[in-house]
Amino acid sequence: MQATSILETVRWNAGKVRVLDQTLLPAREVYRDLARIEEVEEAIRTLAVRGAPAIGVAGAYGVALGARTLAAGSGTLPDAPAFVQALQTISDHLVSVRPTAVNLGWACRRVMGRLRDLAGTGAPTAALVEESVLEAHRILAEDLALSRAMAEAGVALLPEEGRVISHCNTGGLATGGGGTALSLVFEAVRRGQRIFVHVDETRPLLQGARLTSWELQRAGIPHAIQCEGAAAWLMKTRHIDAVLVGADRVAANGDTANKIGTLSLALAAREFGVPFYVVAPSSSFDPSLGSGDEIPIEERAADEVLQFGGVRWSPEGVSAWNPAFDVTPARLITAWVTERGVEQPPFA
Amino acid sequence: MQATSILETVRWNAGKVRVLDQTLLPAREVYRDLARIEEVEEAIRTLAVRGAPAIGVAGAYGVALGARTLAAGSGTLPDAPAFVQALQTISDHLVSVRPTAVNLGWACRRVMGRLRDLAGTGAPTAALVEESVLEAHRILAEDLALSRAMAEAGVALLPEEGRVISHCNTGGLATGGGGTALSLVFEAVRRGQRIFVHVDETRPLLQGARLTSWELQRAGIPHAIQCEGAAAWLMKTRHIDAVLVGADRVAANGDTANKIGTLSLALAAREFGVPFYVVAPSSSFDPSLGSGDEIPIEERAADEVLQFGGVRWSPEGVSAWNPAFDVTPARLITAWVTERGVEQPPFA
Repeated sequence: MQATSILETVRWNAGKVRVLDQTLLPAREVYRDLARIEEVEEAIRTLAVRGAPAIGVAGAYGVALGARTLAAGSGTLPDAPAFVQALQTISDHLVSVRPTAVNLGWACRRVMGRLRDLAGTGAPTAALVEESVLEAHRILAEDLALSRAMAEAGVALLPEEGRVISHCNTGGLATGGGGTALSLVFEAVRRGQRIFVHVDETRPLLQGARLTSWELQRAGIPHAIQCEGAAAWLMKTRHIDAVLVGADRVAANGDTANKIGTLSLALAAREFGVPFYVVAPSSSFDPSLGSGDEIPIEERAADEVLQFGGVRWSPEGVSAWNPAFDVTPARLITAWVTERGVEQPPFA
Repeated sequence: MQATSILETVRWNAGKVRVLDQTLLPAREVYRDLARIEEVEEAIRTLAVRGAPAIGVAGAYGVALGARTLAAGSGTLPDAPAFVQALQTISDHLVSVRPTAVNLGWACRRVMGRLRDLAGTGAPTAALVEESVLEAHRILAEDLALSRAMAEAGVALLPEEGRVISHCNTGGLATGGGGTALSLVFEAVRRGQRIFVHVDETRPLLQGARLTSWELQRAGIPHAIQCEGAAAWLMKTRHIDAVLVGADRVAANGDTANKIGTLSLALAAREFGVPFYVVAPSSSFDPSLGSGDEIPIEERAADEVLQFGGVRWSPEGVSAWNPAFDVTPARLITAWVTERGVEQPPFA
């Protein structure tokens, strides 16, 4: 039983960004060392790194890589303000890769803001390059602490013995290593609570069937996978204590963007009286957006729907609609668990 | 454009039952000739033939095959009452293969009832053997007529131009060849209405992505596939005129068992004000059951969820929950379209 083990989803390793390649799990546990910001972009685009907090951490380290490359490429270093301006363009491009999760933009903006402040104090460009890595380290360290805090804030919502439904992957793989929604389960099991997890497989990319199941199995937590279409029937026919999901972006009014399928799950939870909890760190909250109507929703390639692992099941020439996220209105959400506690809008 | 073409899903062919093997579609269009009732059972069990009306037709022909085998295996033919009794055991076994769809039991009982009546008139066993095929022929012919009648009864529910959501496969492949819910779309398009079909892929066996898409493509009807988890978001973000589903069994109060995921779809349709229609022939109605609570729900193998086409994506050793159907309460259903018209419970 390793219910509280921390995964090394994203780490800094001797001047490179080391990521656990989530496209290969659960069949193979492969760590890749990314040397350039373009490789980080590609890892985020292909979901080798995924999960809102995890891509925040990866993005911060990506900007640090970008800073090193920019500095190394110059015969003489540009002055600090010019350096920050050039890096901003590179950072903006990285942020554009995945538009829905606010954490990616949040983390990159935080690194850039730190560098801009430092440049304003007259610090030399070389200091900015070093500081970019340090700020990314801080973001990772905070992310791990946030997971612990969310777990402690939310664990009381789970029963001594019971069943929860999980959607997508909200464990260590979705964060720097601790987890969002699934961290509550890990903490509950660590405390001796007996929790069974019903895992939505989460089409199209099967993050539940591939990743959540892998995390629960290595932690020794009993679970079973179901197709999303079965989740409502599960709530109708068995007692479910809670639905636990993460978030890619929470608007000021509580409307929550999360993996496609979350809205259906929330509608079923309301129908069958099951508490529905969003678990996310404050970096997933976007107070600049009044409601979920303003959250940009990423649409991904049709091929993700029409095939898997090289096996295509649909006729040639047909199309698919593949929104990566949906928005669940606040009224369907029982509460939001953050590092600060169990909350309701308006948020602190 | 072949919007009204009839598929030869199940046919009698020179003493054998010819079925279009739906496990191989859309990649290959293979017809298999089944010579023994055990082969029909296996085809129904593995979903080579699927869809409530289609397995009714296949079941009736299966009983006819059973009758021929039973007669051929006897040195001297047993007398008609003994023959009927022996065949009843064989028929009961076939019916047990798929418990949820009432059509299978209905069709087999109808053939057996016909033979029992005939035996009661003193007809010889050889006449019963011939009559079993004739009764199956009648069931097929009626099934094709029922599809036409449902299409005509329901087509007025569809707009001149609009969008519908389809779940599982309810076309020619689900019936003797005409279709249930999808027959409304075929008929509307034949009349010049412009209908776009949003096709639920329908996990785990992808009947939407594989079969409905194949039928729509060959009929030249525009469509796109989405994961079930995206259907609620589709209804929230685009105008959808109707959700059209079939049925495996409708209880007296209107509660409707259908492919897993139907309940979620109905909850989303209510939330977003989209009319939700069940389209099914009277053979899918079971007046002996007061409500959906009494409908037996088949659970199928976990491997259907954990892999596809030989590609396994879940960790070894994990389990899955795989109910093949769920029950949608009558209050979530706008109307039932049968061969008699657009109905509400109590049904005629």
